Amino acid sequence: MDLKSVVNLVKTFDGVTRKKEIKNVVNNFKFNAEECDYDFEIISDFGDDAAIIGYDDENAILLAADGIWGKLLEKNPYWAGYCSVLVNANDIAAMGGKSIGMTNIIGIKNLEMGKDLLKGLKDGVKKFGIPVVGGHTHPDAQCNVLDVSITGTVRKDSVLRSDSAKAGDKIVFAYDIDGKAHDDFSLNWDTTSMKSKRLVRSQLKSLVDIGENKLANACKDISNPGALGTLGMLLEVSRKGAVVNVDKIPKSDDIPMSQWLNIYPGSAFVFTTSENNVNALKKTLEDVNITAEVCGEVKADKKYYITNDKNDKELLYDFEKEYICGC
Amino acid sequence: MDLKSVVNLVKTFDGVTRKKEIKNVVNNFKFNAEECDYDFEIISDFGDDAAIIGYDDENAILLAADGIWGKLLEKNPYWAGYCSVLVNANDIAAMGGKSIGMTNIIGIKNLEMGKDLLKGLKDGVKKFGIPVVGGHTHPDAQCNVLDVSITGTVRKDSVLRSDSAKAGDKIVFAYDIDGKAHDDFSLNWDTTSMKSKRLVRSQLKSLVDIGENKLANACKDISNPGALGTLGMLLEVSRKGAVVNVDKIPKSDDIPMSQWLNIYPGSAFVFTTSENNVNALKKTLEDVNITAEVCGEVKADKKYYITNDKNDKELLYDFEKEYICGC
Repeated sequence: MDLKSVVNLVKTFDGVTRKKEIKNVVNNFKFNAEECDYDFEIISDFGDDAAIIGYDDENAILLAADGIWGKLLEKNPYWAGYCSVLVNANDIAAMGGKSIGMTNIIGIKNLEMGKDLLKGLKDGVKKFGIPVVGGHTHPDAQCNVLDVSITGTVRKDSVLRSDSAKAGDKIVFAYDIDGKAHDDFSLNWDTTSMKSKRLVRSQLKSLVDIGENKLANACKDISNPGALGTLGMLLEVSRKGAVVNVDKIPKSDDIPMSQWLNIYPGSAFVFTTSENNVNALKKTLEDVNITAEVCGEVKADKKYYITNDKNDKELLYDFEKEYICGC
Repeated sequence: MDLKSVVNLVKTFDGVTRKKEIKNVVNNFKFNAEECDYDFEIISDFGDDAAIIGYDDENAILLAADGIWGKLLEKNPYWAGYCSVLVNANDIAAMGGKSIGMTNIIGIKNLEMGKDLLKGLKDGVKKFGIPVVGGHTHPDAQCNVLDVSITGTVRKDSVLRSDSAKAGDKIVFAYDIDGKAHDDFSLNWDTTSMKSKRLVRSQLKSLVDIGENKLANACKDISNPGALGTLGMLLEVSRKGAVVNVDKIPKSDDIPMSQWLNIYPGSAFVFTTSENNVNALKKTLEDVNITAEVCGEVKADKKYYITNDKNDKELLYDFEKEYICGC
């Protein structure tokens, strides 16, 4: 796939363009902690996979939430229920954290759909080992809605943030490429439904180890915006640029590049790390079936370029002039 | 208002009858902590104002979530945004906890409504002093949705639960009666929009003090199910009955009983406590403008009776045969 087409693919992808809304919302939530006699410390709020709130001297609490897309919910409520657990589990893991529990708000127009949704949630809870401990169900809702929030925890000295990439870091894309596109959703790369609970949970736990062993400077869970969009968000908040060879991104042979770049994977992350940590980082991930490859480097300027094995080069984003989420 | 009418009012009230759905949902979320290598301790999940998860030797994390009713959102998006903070703040306070932070999922069909909603949320954050730290906004949603979740914390030895009422406890209803019915929603008793941030936050803080000073055995925030419905849920999960004089419930003179009993108040709680703690409990509340009165007593059997100043008596619930939430 030529690089101009890749640029177009990413920049017109709904999974990326919808992130522009974040800026409008975030400005409403400026919080004056001193004025509020607030007992905790907001270390980081919007802009990362989860918010980080200092809890005591050593630990922070992580908060994240996701609204499961209406079309997904209506087309396959079971899978929506299952994925609601998956996406939240990954939001906490991407911070190097451990999940404490979830709450959810469910609105359903009919009971059959509700039963499938609950079955999917239940299977997700069993697979990922994270409890749902509260929430509400509206069985006669006007609209089908599944909103899930998750709370986790992480040691302050081990948290994996996405705004902390350093110039000169190696960029490592890491995917479990052992999976299949979901029958109903071609942009959904299922890697967990066929795997054991033990392996899936080990994958999440590996991020805790990466954080505690200081094997990465920045990390982000690859999600809706796809590989390059997710990295773009990480670079934007880190105020950095990059050069990335798209041909080096771990990929399933079954999926064409045009689909792979925007796919939402069951277990995938992008890291930046110093060169001397690359081998240990890769090994930690490969031990849990996640294929990790160095694909590029973080740059001090704010230009995000993509290249390929033929040495073509295209500018994907100039963060001096453009933004993805504006955080 | 005669007691037979009160019984009918409560038992047909949508705020109470919709709680029956909880039972169906809860059964899907049984969690086997040992099998899941779960690092925390689920002390209590569904059935209380917030879930309690043991975090370390001394502390527990509290999780709660609320979906703001669609009609409220559409009629007055500003007020819905404001109330989404209020209800979550009270869920944590009712556990004797301190709030850490909120996330929310917003779906809006039009931008004007979105602006009002965000303004209400922002004013709620300022009033209650609790930050919104994450979430998502869908600006082109099919449906108007506002789902908010909150995380808090409490010392394990100070948590106020609702399933811990003891036979012989005095039942204390506590309301800030200094307020007004909302112009748009007659079942909404606004006590906070006109008050200082300092007083409103002191009201929430008083519950922390009540927990830490062991001034109550059980507590529940009075919310959707109204005064008697809320007490009913507390008795049900405590596996107790009661005799309650409805004429003793603190009430605004401006509001008829038929409206007051089902009203959703800005700051109100029902407690059960031993007789020797009644005065200290009342004083703690009255110091923050909350009027507290002993209205009845918890009984060992599972019959929940209401009485009045004329000594009439009616059975409201027989929990051997009926349930409100089935938890």
